[in-house]
Amino acid sequence: MTSSENTAAAPATTEKAPSLLGELSAEFAGTMILILFGVGVVAQVTTTPDGSNGQYDSIAWAWGFGVMLGVYVAGRISGAHLNPAVTLAFAVYEGFPWRKVGPFVLAQTLGAFVAALIVRFVYADFIRSVDPNLTETQGIFSTSPGAPTTITTAFFDQVVGTAILVFVIFALVHPRNKGPMANMAPFMIGILVVGIGMAWGANAGYAINPARDFGPRLASWVTGYDTAWVTGDGTPYWWLPIVAPLIGALIGGGLFKALIDRYIPAEDAPQEVGRV
Amino acid sequence: MTSSENTAAAPATTEKAPSLLGELSAEFAGTMILILFGVGVVAQVTTTPDGSNGQYDSIAWAWGFGVMLGVYVAGRISGAHLNPAVTLAFAVYEGFPWRKVGPFVLAQTLGAFVAALIVRFVYADFIRSVDPNLTETQGIFSTSPGAPTTITTAFFDQVVGTAILVFVIFALVHPRNKGPMANMAPFMIGILVVGIGMAWGANAGYAINPARDFGPRLASWVTGYDTAWVTGDGTPYWWLPIVAPLIGALIGGGLFKALIDRYIPAEDAPQEVGRV
Amino acid sequence: MTSSENTAAAPATTEKAPSLLGELSAEFAGTMILILFGVGVVAQVTTTPDGSNGQYDSIAWAWGFGVMLGVYVAGRISGAHLNPAVTLAFAVYEGFPWRKVGPFVLAQTLGAFVAALIVRFVYADFIRSVDPNLTETQGIFSTSPGAPTTITTAFFDQVVGTAILVFVIFALVHPRNKGPMANMAPFMIGILVVGIGMAWGANAGYAINPARDFGPRLASWVTGYDTAWVTGDGTPYWWLPIVAPLIGALIGGGLFKALIDRYIPAEDAPQEVGRV
Amino acid sequence: MTSSENTAAAPATTEKAPSLLGELSAEFAGTMILILFGVGVVAQVTTTPDGSNGQYDSIAWAWGFGVMLGVYVAGRISGAHLNPAVTLAFAVYEGFPWRKVGPFVLAQTLGAFVAALIVRFVYADFIRSVDPNLTETQGIFSTSPGAPTTITTAFFDQVVGTAILVFVIFALVHPRNKGPMANMAPFMIGILVVGIGMAWGANAGYAINPARDFGPRLASWVTGYDTAWVTGDGTPYWWLPIVAPLIGALIGGGLFKALIDRYIPAEDAPQEVGRV
Repeated sequence: MTSSENTAAAPATTEKAPSLLGELSAEFAGTMILILFGVGVVAQVTTTPDGSNGQYDSIAWAWGFGVMLGVYVAGRISGAHLNPAVTLAFAVYEGFPWRKVGPFVLAQTLGAFVAALIVRFVYADFIRSVDPNLTETQGIFSTSPGAPTTITTAFFDQVVGTAILVFVIFALVHPRNKGPMANMAPFMIGILVVGIGMAWGANAGYAINPARDFGPRLASWVTGYDTAWVTGDGTPYWWLPIVAPLIGALIGGGLFKALIDRYIPAEDAPQEVGRV
Repeated sequence: MTSSENTAAAPATTEKAPSLLGELSAEFAGTMILILFGVGVVAQVTTTPDGSNGQYDSIAWAWGFGVMLGVYVAGRISGAHLNPAVTLAFAVYEGFPWRKVGPFVLAQTLGAFVAALIVRFVYADFIRSVDPNLTETQGIFSTSPGAPTTITTAFFDQVVGTAILVFVIFALVHPRNKGPMANMAPFMIGILVVGIGMAWGANAGYAINPARDFGPRLASWVTGYDTAWVTGDGTPYWWLPIVAPLIGALIGGGLFKALIDRYIPAEDAPQEVGRV
Repeated sequence: MTSSENTAAAPATTEKAPSLLGELSAEFAGTMILILFGVGVVAQVTTTPDGSNGQYDSIAWAWGFGVMLGVYVAGRISGAHLNPAVTLAFAVYEGFPWRKVGPFVLAQTLGAFVAALIVRFVYADFIRSVDPNLTETQGIFSTSPGAPTTITTAFFDQVVGTAILVFVIFALVHPRNKGPMANMAPFMIGILVVGIGMAWGANAGYAINPARDFGPRLASWVTGYDTAWVTGDGTPYWWLPIVAPLIGALIGGGLFKALIDRYIPAEDAPQEVGRV
Repeated sequence: MTSSENTAAAPATTEKAPSLLGELSAEFAGTMILILFGVGVVAQVTTTPDGSNGQYDSIAWAWGFGVMLGVYVAGRISGAHLNPAVTLAFAVYEGFPWRKVGPFVLAQTLGAFVAALIVRFVYADFIRSVDPNLTETQGIFSTSPGAPTTITTAFFDQVVGTAILVFVIFALVHPRNKGPMANMAPFMIGILVVGIGMAWGANAGYAINPARDFGPRLASWVTGYDTAWVTGDGTPYWWLPIVAPLIGALIGGGLFKALIDRYIPAEDAPQEVGRV
């Protein structure tokens, strides 16, 4: 899966690879779409406490849909990382150029920030109606530990959740593995995030994406939330959904290399019976 | 994505493009299917207040399914706009013929109107059982602002919601962008609407489609609803789910052109590693 | 869409069309799978009244999944009608051989009957725990009108629901219409049934399939349910989910012919811009 | 569907079939992903009794998503059985080599065991908060009979549930049957498991997979659960979700052979009208 393998067949004269500016624009727009759905659904559910506008599962679904749609928006141009942890894993394990890592991360974070500002603005009436002092609804924008969860557990939770994310993404998009065809891989990546929300969301709100957490956290802070950087008891927390997902991404990518990648047969290897 | 690019390969002798009448019939039928599910599910959920026939998320899902199925019904013949805001965006940004815009909008609105009449008729027993004076169930047919939402916020909400709708539709159907293949784009457009219902439904009921709102609103009025044209406190409201989505569609389409379209590489441009 | 169009390309020597026996076996098995999920989920939800094993939406989803999976089971061999109303519509509008209609309907009804017996047997402990006299759980097996719904309304409801079903199925499987490819049409047909459950299930329990209703109704009667043939107040009802769906199927198929089929362009007709 | 049919076209020189070690690694990793979602979601829902982190349907969905994603992870290398009952059925009916059955089962069980340990570790704070003595939350890890369900009924339930599973899997992956293409079969297999959870989960928690039940059961026992091997009243139960699924798999596979497989037409047999 080196770059040369993929580009060899394309005649140079008709190639027009996207510019870095185009890639950054796509990462910005794709992450914006992701957060417009993700932070939007939390705003909708959180500010209607009786459940008449949705409930926890709505959050799991719509975050996943945001991922699906954001990946479709950006996939052709930038590869649709939409997540600094994914960008890091592709740089470490798949040859994604290191010089692009910083710009990608900035574009992703900026997209998340702008999207969160739009949610903040459009949901202002609802937020005011349930939390006029902006002390109860920080969870719309950024993650925090579940009630019984220690900081240490939250850290491990984010490592595991992001490792699952990157491990399965690598499996879905590997060119010789049997991922969905007909360009339905973005759909399945979204389903992956729905599943993580349902199974790995209780301890730490499944940030699993530093841009998803930091961008909206910053947006909440600049629009009046004093609670942006800490947990309910004042412990600094903003760093955790940045550091732990990056570590988890390295672990998940490495496990994929160790457990799956090295064993994937050649494209023309036979399919035995009993295969799905 | 000019018309000539798409038609060049088809020999003229075997072409049989659909007539305008056929296109209008498809827009009528597709929008009718959309509203049979959309207004139908709101009727089912609203008239069974204990939740034993579904709840908010049912509404989000079934509206999206209505979109999916309506697009599959009409897609081959008319392109399945099913929404005047989408028709406007295609006219402004993609060369859809302006002379067809008016007829398409009429066919869409008529399809929505007829479908809402069918729901009104079949759900008459249920409506009578919970709202004999037809003063409490306007929401089955048309949208209105959420409890804390001002008219201004509702307007911005509809602009944003429709901008998201059109931005992502453009991304999904662009011929050189990586949308779903195997004709699964209508499925994903339906998922898009499910997501908007979950994340952008609280402020104004996510009309995001003038025909979806006006047609059923008219159907409710002609069948006995005195509440059809105004909000609960008597403010005229029917114009908002027409005007704001049209503005949102222009913004969403323009942002797609600015942020994505211009950067999409040629079809034979290489795929780099780290791409989805 | 005549038979000759479809078979012309297949050399006669290698053809091996399924026998009628094979087709009946497939209809039997496919409808059995459908009902194992459909009646199964109603049993699961109904016998756990606190909702801890699912709720109304589970019913809508699992019925649709039953349809999807049943269609995949039988599709290659018999075309997977799984529904006498669908068989009738294909006979009237698409040239399905009339001589096969009776056998297909019998196989479908038998499959539904056997599946319902299996549910009856495996859920016997649960049914006994909530309804020892078998007077309260008829709804596991067969449909009945909603609380405020008159027989007349239930009749119209079943006509409309089945008309929607057949109209959209025809649109999804028409060879020149833009249905899902990659053999994902069965998936979308299942989604169609999920949507009908969410939007058209309140008045009469969305039988929309005479075999689905009569087979399990008979299974409940032979296993001790005295309530099998009538509504709660003793009105004979079993005939309605047979007659009304058959009428609805004719209407839905006819409307498809009138509104869509005649306008579908030739396969090589150009795609204009603004199409999905 | 003999092995030779499938391999004939691949030139021997470029073949590189996966080694047994690779297949076991894939079964290990795929089952680990399955259980990380499956046991994870039960942990999340069970330890938040007010439903604010999900409910029964979350469990049904996320188990199915775990299956989908686990199959995508392992499918290319090992065929992604992820379930001893499926491995047995493929050995009996499809020529899967018997010498691999034992190793596959061990790898699957080990993957489930490790995944359950990870869930046990990351959800330790939540588990401690609701069940400090580890007497109430066995259900996170292993299945048990529903409240009114006898052991006999649980046994039949697991036979039926696994028979449905294997019957439909065989239908979905049969090379001449009309399963989903574009490698979407793993998606549909996941949907199958979602449906089984919704319709066949009440009596015995739908283990339908000996590795899914035994691995996590063992993990709970080694981490302090004294309740691991018995039902609430002390009856040994751990054997049932092993034995009954194996029997069910044989029945389901045999019924597929009898009712469907023998009637599937040749690949180039004509499609008649009225087919889906």
